[in-house]
Amino acid sequence: MHLAERAAAGERLAIARLLTLIENGTDEGLEALDQLYPRSGSAHLIGITGPSGAGKSTLVNRLALALVDLPEQRDAALRVAVIAIDPTSPFSGGALLGDRIRMRDLADRPDIFIRSMATRGTLGGLARAAGEAALLLDAAGFKYVLIETVGAGQAEVDIARLAHTTLVIEAPGLGDDVQAGKAGILEIADILVVNKADKPGADAAARALELMLEIGDELRNSGQQPNEPGWHVPVLKVSALNGDGIADLIDSIQAHRNFLKTGSGWQARGGAYARSMFDSLLHERLFAGWQAGTDRQLLEGIYDRMANRALSPRQALRELGFK
Amino acid sequence: MHLAERAAAGERLAIARLLTLIENGTDEGLEALDQLYPRSGSAHLIGITGPSGAGKSTLVNRLALALVDLPEQRDAALRVAVIAIDPTSPFSGGALLGDRIRMRDLADRPDIFIRSMATRGTLGGLARAAGEAALLLDAAGFKYVLIETVGAGQAEVDIARLAHTTLVIEAPGLGDDVQAGKAGILEIADILVVNKADKPGADAAARALELMLEIGDELRNSGQQPNEPGWHVPVLKVSALNGDGIADLIDSIQAHRNFLKTGSGWQARGGAYARSMFDSLLHERLFAGWQAGTDRQLLEGIYDRMANRALSPRQALRELGFK
Repeated sequence: MHLAERAAAGERLAIARLLTLIENGTDEGLEALDQLYPRSGSAHLIGITGPSGAGKSTLVNRLALALVDLPEQRDAALRVAVIAIDPTSPFSGGALLGDRIRMRDLADRPDIFIRSMATRGTLGGLARAAGEAALLLDAAGFKYVLIETVGAGQAEVDIARLAHTTLVIEAPGLGDDVQAGKAGILEIADILVVNKADKPGADAAARALELMLEIGDELRNSGQQPNEPGWHVPVLKVSALNGDGIADLIDSIQAHRNFLKTGSGWQARGGAYARSMFDSLLHERLFAGWQAGTDRQLLEGIYDRMANRALSPRQALRELGFK
Repeated sequence: MHLAERAAAGERLAIARLLTLIENGTDEGLEALDQLYPRSGSAHLIGITGPSGAGKSTLVNRLALALVDLPEQRDAALRVAVIAIDPTSPFSGGALLGDRIRMRDLADRPDIFIRSMATRGTLGGLARAAGEAALLLDAAGFKYVLIETVGAGQAEVDIARLAHTTLVIEAPGLGDDVQAGKAGILEIADILVVNKADKPGADAAARALELMLEIGDELRNSGQQPNEPGWHVPVLKVSALNGDGIADLIDSIQAHRNFLKTGSGWQARGGAYARSMFDSLLHERLFAGWQAGTDRQLLEGIYDRMANRALSPRQALRELGFK
């Protein structure tokens, strides 16, 4: 049987093998995605992001175990998949990371699937690889696909665009700079989570977030920031370590799903990664086509003059016949 | 006098105005960059990144003040420029951020120029805007351009590619997740800095980083990771708060410059942002050209079928005549 069919039938080894093929950008992987694409579209994609030290991995761990045990999951063989993304780590491929080790207790559960991804290099490569992996896991039949990212940057925003529901995790005591992270990723959050709720400062952190949300709402209402209307972003205190507040978080995630399904949000957000893949492939093809039609020596000469400051990038493009 | 000429003459208001034009992507801004491009190439571009809570802003503050006072700067009118990047903050534009406030004591110095940038949206937009701003400040005559980024993600890696020297800042006590940050950004560091050296755990953090560097070196020597040969990445302990270790850090930055200038590194790295701007403009033009030649209705139909899972992204491209 073909690898894609075996993955669609939920065979773990086939899924793992296909993820590798996809991550490596092989034709076989891309063809399998084509085959599996019609089967995708029913998983709930949940993005989880936030600054270092917020305890994301512990929370993802806890959340995965709680989602697996939901009554609605009773008859599902494949329940929860986790994609843990370590941006730009050619050194480790994620293997060195301590926080991955904490996921070991998920790894031997037959109803949970975990994949750590580390994509090097190209702009947007990570978001694309994550989207393709999510598509495969969705088509394979997982009900929930959790996508965890480290840090707060462009990659997080891109990945948030791929998810139905984005959780932004904060924690008390991460220092002043955390304010920056909050301001930066507030607008991608569907649910804000203050982890380590048992620590001092959790209430203050939650209040600060609520305040920032209010300011954001005012900006939004003044027409500066169009966001999903009608969804009130909740600020939830949880303790991933002892499980406090996890049930409320699950309720909130379900409520967000219901909210999206009532409007056009579910399909719009669920279709975002297809568009993102399309755009990425399109740019790749356009560039390859241009490169094939451009004289290599002419180009090298232009690059040299650019390096010598004789030609600005825009002037270089003009010499190549653009505009 | 034209804005570009006034900026080249070091007029602060003209520089500020041009930065806005560039950030907004106006034609006037792009034309000024063309004009100023031949004057660029002598500033030392220094990228500064690391996880939230490491105290980057305080360190940048301290570093800027120390660089301004260097003997080599005695005759320079414009000495140090700081570009502080807040990714994806349409809410605040950086204005809400507490750590920007700490930069106020830099803002009233005539020999220091500070700019906070927050670029929304498009993939790579931030790196491009930062590169263009650095180019302008370079051409305007600043000897050092510091580029500070928040978080650890794709944007940081992209920005590191624009800098001659990249500092990665860590600090003790940021929690387990910091390991992830370390693994992720180790390979972009030219100098590793453990800030808050007066806090407990600083020695341990420095040792952990040295260990990770050794592992990295082994991988590099085994041919897995080509990096600048001959530069030994130092791990420096500093306290941005009281100034300890800042002199050593400056020495290290100067040593790295001398190292780059001895080989081909200085020109190669200094030319990277031109290539990056070129690539970004090229992709923009290729896409615009394709879009102009593509029937809008046909495209909408294909997008719809993609959203309905009837057509995978790759199949959609085939229908549009690719490969």
